[in-house]
Amino acid sequence: MAVIPVELGGRSYDVHVGRGLLERAVADGLLPSPGGGLCLVADGNALAHHGERLLHVLKEAGAAVAVYEVHGGEAAKSWSELERLTDWLLAQGVERGDRVLAMGGGVVGDLTGFACAILKRGTGFVQLPTTLLAQVDSSVGGKTAINTAAGKNLVGAFHQPSLVLADLDTLATLPERELRAGYAEVLKYGVLGDAEFFDWLCANADAVLSLVPDAIEHAVATSIAAKARIVAEDERETSGRRALLNLGHTFGHALEAATGFSEGLLHGEAVALGMVLAARYSARRDDCSLDDAERVTRAVSQAGLPTEISALGLECDGAALVDHMRHDKKMQGGTLPFVLLRTIGAAFLAKDVALEDVALFLDEQLQTH
Amino acid sequence: MAVIPVELGGRSYDVHVGRGLLERAVADGLLPSPGGGLCLVADGNALAHHGERLLHVLKEAGAAVAVYEVHGGEAAKSWSELERLTDWLLAQGVERGDRVLAMGGGVVGDLTGFACAILKRGTGFVQLPTTLLAQVDSSVGGKTAINTAAGKNLVGAFHQPSLVLADLDTLATLPERELRAGYAEVLKYGVLGDAEFFDWLCANADAVLSLVPDAIEHAVATSIAAKARIVAEDERETSGRRALLNLGHTFGHALEAATGFSEGLLHGEAVALGMVLAARYSARRDDCSLDDAERVTRAVSQAGLPTEISALGLECDGAALVDHMRHDKKMQGGTLPFVLLRTIGAAFLAKDVALEDVALFLDEQLQTH
Repeated sequence: MAVIPVELGGRSYDVHVGRGLLERAVADGLLPSPGGGLCLVADGNALAHHGERLLHVLKEAGAAVAVYEVHGGEAAKSWSELERLTDWLLAQGVERGDRVLAMGGGVVGDLTGFACAILKRGTGFVQLPTTLLAQVDSSVGGKTAINTAAGKNLVGAFHQPSLVLADLDTLATLPERELRAGYAEVLKYGVLGDAEFFDWLCANADAVLSLVPDAIEHAVATSIAAKARIVAEDERETSGRRALLNLGHTFGHALEAATGFSEGLLHGEAVALGMVLAARYSARRDDCSLDDAERVTRAVSQAGLPTEISALGLECDGAALVDHMRHDKKMQGGTLPFVLLRTIGAAFLAKDVALEDVALFLDEQLQTH
Repeated sequence: MAVIPVELGGRSYDVHVGRGLLERAVADGLLPSPGGGLCLVADGNALAHHGERLLHVLKEAGAAVAVYEVHGGEAAKSWSELERLTDWLLAQGVERGDRVLAMGGGVVGDLTGFACAILKRGTGFVQLPTTLLAQVDSSVGGKTAINTAAGKNLVGAFHQPSLVLADLDTLATLPERELRAGYAEVLKYGVLGDAEFFDWLCANADAVLSLVPDAIEHAVATSIAAKARIVAEDERETSGRRALLNLGHTFGHALEAATGFSEGLLHGEAVALGMVLAARYSARRDDCSLDDAERVTRAVSQAGLPTEISALGLECDGAALVDHMRHDKKMQGGTLPFVLLRTIGAAFLAKDVALEDVALFLDEQLQTH
């Protein structure tokens, strides 16, 4: 088991990574909740697979637990669900000093975290991520949000959890495709800032994806430690440091938008493709070598993740994909910073990228391979 | 003219207090807005009385201004209006670095500030308060919120403006009753922390309420400076210091709830009554002298504000009033801290108040006078 501190002054907290954490939740500090009762917000999958054992230990410890189920996947990150959840938490009498439990994937964490951010101008919450993607990415760092007609995650708050318990046992019930999609974010930490971790992943991808205990713990803990370091340096994405975590996300987001944010392309799959595109675009600009771009492509492919946008069957051109990027939160005075590569393990923020050039590059990518 | 800094590290900003500020808005730093265009959110009163002169100077300076009118008073602080305004701002292409203008009373400031707090996880905004209450209280300090079925301001965020321009000329078009209601918050700063200011107000209430230029500027600037000091010490109301600003608000809120948050009792009037009740309750506990409680009562009465809850025609008892207090955001483990007085100019946070005793006290107040 690993305990990774996220150092944010008065908002610091620990991320626990290991097996059997839900059973040890009370020992690991989930209780006592100052308000007496506990509110648990969870998705159906998490409740079905892990609800019973979590509720068992909480009830054994004497907590009265009220449970709220979030339905409908990504669609739950909406104004109406935010209002419904917030009203429910208010009706439960949640106080600022309480800690609402959010158990499930990124949707539950994002929605619950945002509800707690605005509940009485800030109420505590604990992340209990049960997907690989949520464990290595969305549950750590305090980004919370809902989607609106104008785009994904355009309305939200920075609101840090009080504690994160990443129980590796929960990954055993994850569909293989979701596990691979989450692996894209693991790989991202190697590509953007840790060449040694990248090499380790290339040598151990099968062990990680087979959930060999030591391998998955090393992969998850190293990813979270990388994120914790970056978040501690730039909590609110003002210095450009945290923006490096968006490697693959600008390209990936355009692909998700072009495929209607459907099951046809999972977020992690889009990030995998986006990383390949960012690497190839970096090579095209001579920022990194073609060899590095090919190594990124091979690492993505090795994990069973997509590498070619020509295979997506998109009925649009590069200009249309770039149009999706123009609504990005990070647009500044009409330009969009891109995370590109100098080498594997050394990403940087390029502020001189012309979206027209990106459109041409994407046209090439749509036609080749 | 006075410029009062609110010292909050990276979130510091200035509050300008004086006449003709809307005409000088461009000179005072309202422009340029990095995004090119400007969004102005305002209520009907503010637009009718001050919209033309503000839009004139902005357009002269070359800004394209998009205008959004907030309808319906306090009812506009709702989920549906928050969603509508946020979607409108997104449709205008507002970026994080832009500064949305909020012109009007507290409703517009609270709603617009909250929308900007969650827009792309934090977008800049400027407060242009046009009521006395908004100038001396709600526009400064970063509290933003909407109301829900469970109560007022229960959903919101701490989000500081980038600038506040309190143009005293806007007070000339304010109905007299609203001016007096705003004066209650002015008086509050004297009662809670500044005996000299309290004495000055007792001697100059008529001049302030008649908007004699030097008097109203001194009253507004002194109030804002008091609030700025307290907010700088305790931005997020964690140390108990900022809680002193709630003097009169716990009692007042219960009275507003009992009168259905109607025009029958304005917020400032409820605060005035609440201050009288807090002073009398302090005297009843021997925390302050009866003489001090009477001086507070006289100062409130002198401004044409209500001092006796027996005159409200409430059809409820003290227990029912106390029930309204139990939903307060500040409830901690089932108890509610009260702001009470040692003397005029020295408020303190009492954490040992039994709500049952408050109910008895309110029963007495409902029956006497």
